[in-house]
Amino acid sequence: MSPEKFLTKTKYFKSEDEILLESGKVLKNIEIAYETYGNLNKNKDNAILVCHALTADAHAAGYHSLNDKKPGWWDAMIGPNKALDTNKYFVISSNVLGGCKGTTGPCSINPDTKTPYGHDFPVITIEDMVKVQKKLVDFFGIKKLIVIGGSMGGMQAIEWSIKHPDIVKTTIVIASTARLSAQAIAFNAVARNAIIQDKYFNGGNYYNSCNTPDYGLAIARMIGHITYLCEEAMHSKFGRDFKSAPSFDFGVDFQVESYLEYQGRIFVDRFDANSYLYITKALDYYDPITKFGTLENAFRQSDSRFLIISFDSDWLFTSNQSKEMVNALIKAGRDVSYVELKSPCGHDAFLIEYENQTKIIKNFLKKDCPKIDAA
Amino acid sequence: MSPEKFLTKTKYFKSEDEILLESGKVLKNIEIAYETYGNLNKNKDNAILVCHALTADAHAAGYHSLNDKKPGWWDAMIGPNKALDTNKYFVISSNVLGGCKGTTGPCSINPDTKTPYGHDFPVITIEDMVKVQKKLVDFFGIKKLIVIGGSMGGMQAIEWSIKHPDIVKTTIVIASTARLSAQAIAFNAVARNAIIQDKYFNGGNYYNSCNTPDYGLAIARMIGHITYLCEEAMHSKFGRDFKSAPSFDFGVDFQVESYLEYQGRIFVDRFDANSYLYITKALDYYDPITKFGTLENAFRQSDSRFLIISFDSDWLFTSNQSKEMVNALIKAGRDVSYVELKSPCGHDAFLIEYENQTKIIKNFLKKDCPKIDAA
Repeated sequence: MSPEKFLTKTKYFKSEDEILLESGKVLKNIEIAYETYGNLNKNKDNAILVCHALTADAHAAGYHSLNDKKPGWWDAMIGPNKALDTNKYFVISSNVLGGCKGTTGPCSINPDTKTPYGHDFPVITIEDMVKVQKKLVDFFGIKKLIVIGGSMGGMQAIEWSIKHPDIVKTTIVIASTARLSAQAIAFNAVARNAIIQDKYFNGGNYYNSCNTPDYGLAIARMIGHITYLCEEAMHSKFGRDFKSAPSFDFGVDFQVESYLEYQGRIFVDRFDANSYLYITKALDYYDPITKFGTLENAFRQSDSRFLIISFDSDWLFTSNQSKEMVNALIKAGRDVSYVELKSPCGHDAFLIEYENQTKIIKNFLKKDCPKIDAA
Repeated sequence: MSPEKFLTKTKYFKSEDEILLESGKVLKNIEIAYETYGNLNKNKDNAILVCHALTADAHAAGYHSLNDKKPGWWDAMIGPNKALDTNKYFVISSNVLGGCKGTTGPCSINPDTKTPYGHDFPVITIEDMVKVQKKLVDFFGIKKLIVIGGSMGGMQAIEWSIKHPDIVKTTIVIASTARLSAQAIAFNAVARNAIIQDKYFNGGNYYNSCNTPDYGLAIARMIGHITYLCEEAMHSKFGRDFKSAPSFDFGVDFQVESYLEYQGRIFVDRFDANSYLYITKALDYYDPITKFGTLENAFRQSDSRFLIISFDSDWLFTSNQSKEMVNALIKAGRDVSYVELKSPCGHDAFLIEYENQTKIIKNFLKKDCPKIDAA
């Protein structure tokens, strides 16, 4: 076993509390899938909460078994001496509300009916995701929290900083935005349409069927992938290369088509179409600017230092959107560092450009390094 | 009747010739839907061929009836004293091969089977579209031709200039490119997937069915519309405005969703899903750079003056792609004028920004104004 192949396990926390959602509806018996890495100190002030993007899960680091080929989705960032250094920090990663990776979502059993929720699951928001995460953080008795996230994870980090200034003293927002652009909403809307129009969607009640809305979900994922890569990345990765020769039919001709089809195909094995609907809706709805009048006012609620990282080739969550946050934070009198990283990888860069992110995050976290308990 | 409401009519030309397609297959009994505006002079050297984009038709100018609310799709550009001045020029507009607006395409009757072609229709290319247009141009005995087109129409114009240097002496390429980017191919691939996976697609044989693949075609159109507008245009047009209040369900929430759904819905009434497949495939395949080794070599085949117009906010067919053409034309020793117009309208600008296009095109055409016959 490689010294770096540390084993981790997804655990489950069940909250007895009812959660009042932004929609006005109530959820109960919520289960939260989570993993932790490193140790919580006596002061309970060395915790980092990692918030994930649209389709990830609680398994952010390490391996579930020695046979696993791939580690958790942000393993390059979490571990001893890594950006989120588990020699110093207690790192928590949990699956979001509405997901399909262990935390309560539309594929979970509705306690009232003993069958999967399907579309009886209430529409949830980023705020609701944070409410659920707060239950887990409280369970550990955490006094001080660093929150970090990329893409949708960044939105959760923003919400944490606004909603819980008493414990969130450090916030790191990567490749994210305070609210989606009209274009990003448009892409999500088309993706949802593809799922809802799938012949096997059946109003979201497909869990007991042999057929699931895989085609629609695959199309949604393909649309997503186009937005995650920038045109430069697509060009250098695929160009106009043919898989073989022009087929003169409607099969897969170009490498870029082959890539997208593959991404769509493998995605349906690991993700639930209803979760895709619910989570993209949460993305669309999040808007602290409208809620607080201005982004400046939103950030005035916080009592946190901020690190904002964007990638120059990210056209989904652009550097300009990050700069808007930086300007609002400055106006709100908050301590903010901002770095725009050069990368050819588009929005995906936060899952690829580990070296620069590590340097920047390590340096940023130095300032308020918690006390580590003696061994 | 307004003096500007001139009546036009779509006519049909039937070619007896067999057309050898790029795929190696042969098409026969091709019918071409076309309209003409203005008069052909005795020298037959005052003709302009207008080439249309993905979903347009032969009806480019005027009204088919006094009751029509809308004129042809480029009416603002075609008519007396307009950019394409019908007092001077004989303007021809025809529906492309593979279309569904009168020219032979997958919804036409296959003369061999007496039923609609469906997917027995061969895959066609931009080159094939031009071969068919050439039959029409020859029918009029045209000696000298100006070719103009926006978007896919620009590709046809490029192909005309390369293939028929004997008659094409002036070429105007607007919001176009010599070949699609990997990203544009990717969007087309996802659009085709949405159509092919529609529950009513039935392998393309749906013409005798009560149900047609409308959902898939609508999704394809929605994807298209996102790419036609730039993010700035979407932002200023819709922002994050709600239709009413958040629905907390999966209906239409935002104005931008409402716009896209509407565009998808009305599109299926006027377009055939198979044509969408065939024409996007033709777009993907067109690549004179690969065919001739370099774009410079491709343009060396031509004997035409060129006007290239791009729009700064067009992210589908970018200004950089236009500049590549300009550079290649200069290297090839061709006379080229290039204008990048500022517009907030994205790719759609060629169908919106008439004033500036008119000025530039009128000025460009002055140089080789044909002799008009005495009345």
